[in-house]
Amino acid sequence: MKMIEETLRRIAPVDRSWIERAAARQLQLTKPPGSLGALEDVANRLAAIRQTLDPQVLRQRIYVIAADHGVVAEGVSAYPREVTAQMVYNFLRGGAAINALARSAGIEVRVVDAGVDADFSDAPGLIQAKVSRGTANFTRGPAMTREEAVRSVTTGIELARAAAADGIGLLGAGEMGIGNTTAASAITTALTGLAPEAVTGYGAGIDDAGLRRKILAVKRALEINRPDRADALDVLAKIGGLEIGVMAGVALGAAAERIPVVADGFISTSAAALACVFCPSARDYLFIAHRSQEVGHDSLIEFIGRRPLLDLQMRLGEGTGAALAMHIIGAAARLLGEMATFAEAGVSDRGA
Amino acid sequence: MKMIEETLRRIAPVDRSWIERAAARQLQLTKPPGSLGALEDVANRLAAIRQTLDPQVLRQRIYVIAADHGVVAEGVSAYPREVTAQMVYNFLRGGAAINALARSAGIEVRVVDAGVDADFSDAPGLIQAKVSRGTANFTRGPAMTREEAVRSVTTGIELARAAAADGIGLLGAGEMGIGNTTAASAITTALTGLAPEAVTGYGAGIDDAGLRRKILAVKRALEINRPDRADALDVLAKIGGLEIGVMAGVALGAAAERIPVVADGFISTSAAALACVFCPSARDYLFIAHRSQEVGHDSLIEFIGRRPLLDLQMRLGEGTGAALAMHIIGAAARLLGEMATFAEAGVSDRGA
Repeated sequence: MKMIEETLRRIAPVDRSWIERAAARQLQLTKPPGSLGALEDVANRLAAIRQTLDPQVLRQRIYVIAADHGVVAEGVSAYPREVTAQMVYNFLRGGAAINALARSAGIEVRVVDAGVDADFSDAPGLIQAKVSRGTANFTRGPAMTREEAVRSVTTGIELARAAAADGIGLLGAGEMGIGNTTAASAITTALTGLAPEAVTGYGAGIDDAGLRRKILAVKRALEINRPDRADALDVLAKIGGLEIGVMAGVALGAAAERIPVVADGFISTSAAALACVFCPSARDYLFIAHRSQEVGHDSLIEFIGRRPLLDLQMRLGEGTGAALAMHIIGAAARLLGEMATFAEAGVSDRGA
Repeated sequence: MKMIEETLRRIAPVDRSWIERAAARQLQLTKPPGSLGALEDVANRLAAIRQTLDPQVLRQRIYVIAADHGVVAEGVSAYPREVTAQMVYNFLRGGAAINALARSAGIEVRVVDAGVDADFSDAPGLIQAKVSRGTANFTRGPAMTREEAVRSVTTGIELARAAAADGIGLLGAGEMGIGNTTAASAITTALTGLAPEAVTGYGAGIDDAGLRRKILAVKRALEINRPDRADALDVLAKIGGLEIGVMAGVALGAAAERIPVVADGFISTSAAALACVFCPSARDYLFIAHRSQEVGHDSLIEFIGRRPLLDLQMRLGEGTGAALAMHIIGAAARLLGEMATFAEAGVSDRGA
């Protein structure tokens, strides 16, 4: 708990004067004012986070964090529980979607076991940070102890610190965990106060009967656990997941280290939302990669108040949307850092 | 004219069976069916264009094509005419937005003079393909002769052929030309039958009085020239631009060479729309990079019938949207070519 508290104290809101300085620089670059749209906003925020008008991100990393979920016993997932562990091996061998997208964008992938129900002693390359072999079924009691929740968040903070030590300039948070859209829907219900029906969707592709079971599981989770929406650790412990706790910790640790961090889809964004409850200023360091097809995502996006960069009708997770968005964020940084000014290029400005 | 006719004869619709084969492969890859959304559609179309289930695009190029416009005499632009030539030098020195974005994505930039009102004998690296020193003012008669229009389209076809010879797997078409949103609005009016008011916007940032002059210029262009919307060459010659003709030729030449080609914003898409009038099957090879902020773009997107990949509130041109979208298209190709199947990865499929 001490590390979390210390991290929260280190998170400062970004200095708005850097955004203004970056915006003033944008006006001098050889383009009509505002014509790069969202790219200008992204670059200006990066400038404020990094406190420089050349906020280039040379080295980028995505943590793909895996864990299992006791709630799968309620029949809420289209895939069997063992797929979580099987996909961890797929990530490590480079065969998953996130691997192909990260290679395409020059992003490092690091795979983290936060709580998979499997023995990974034979898995070189895996970051071993198992808190437990998966959460308990949160329709019958809390998903984890408060201590386990603290350990998951602390793990995420440590991952962000390691990234800072490695000179990472842009971080993404992706996940894998059969059953974890149910946890994300429960968190969304708790944080937004919306009805479970409004924020619970088909996940990886459950059928209509499964969706009804999933909505019921979210309702029961809230009724039995009664999480306190003002207490992020309480929400995480009672109805969250271990990979969600780690991703929330990554967002907090990144903010403390002044590293921009990219939330991916529904589950990753639920962790980012928890990070904003832990510390509202964490929002200043946060980008939302894309608008997921998963029904509850829009409510989380609104809760955080950041516009997603992409809408490609994706709903895979793993950090796949983050990988695509990180290319755009990196490109936006290069625009601010590399473009010539009207004066440098000898180009007439408007009204000239 | 002979080269255009020969090129049009060589454009074949893509074989739909390749799309089905690619879609069947997508179902075997380690992800929930359809969960990569638009990326799957992109990859499946690439598979059909290249006739392979591994349609990777190793080498990519954007042609940035510049030309001047006689209609600027009507006071339709926020920037002075000489900016076209000044920006050509900026492109060649690598200081423009397209240069930064292309560097970021590993895309080659080739700058083409299709009709700038300047002497570029001192401009190494520029592809010299000047048809004339800019179009005539099309509010008083045709923008160019039919012969000049043919030459511009032929130039574009030759550029696409050169790209094919260089092993380019993905092409983008960008532009620079003070006054060219007025030409694109005139083309949009001619092709869609919509009112000039509905498809004429602020371009690089003209004021309201300028917008009224611009709408009037589009109206007069249509009244005086009466282009035949079924005759792409007639529309191009009477109310088009030289860079627009070259970009239309690039789209046609790319289709003939079975190279996927990416339209950028409003002006680039107006050229793509002309290419589709030349030959409806050219559409099969076409991607639209992004939804521009320029008001007429949506009508052109609807005319072509392809969904744009990005919506980042951009309105710069140069190929800037194309550069970002080309990264996504390349990434989609890698997903199809590189992801492991459920069987290869030992991952349980749903219902297992």
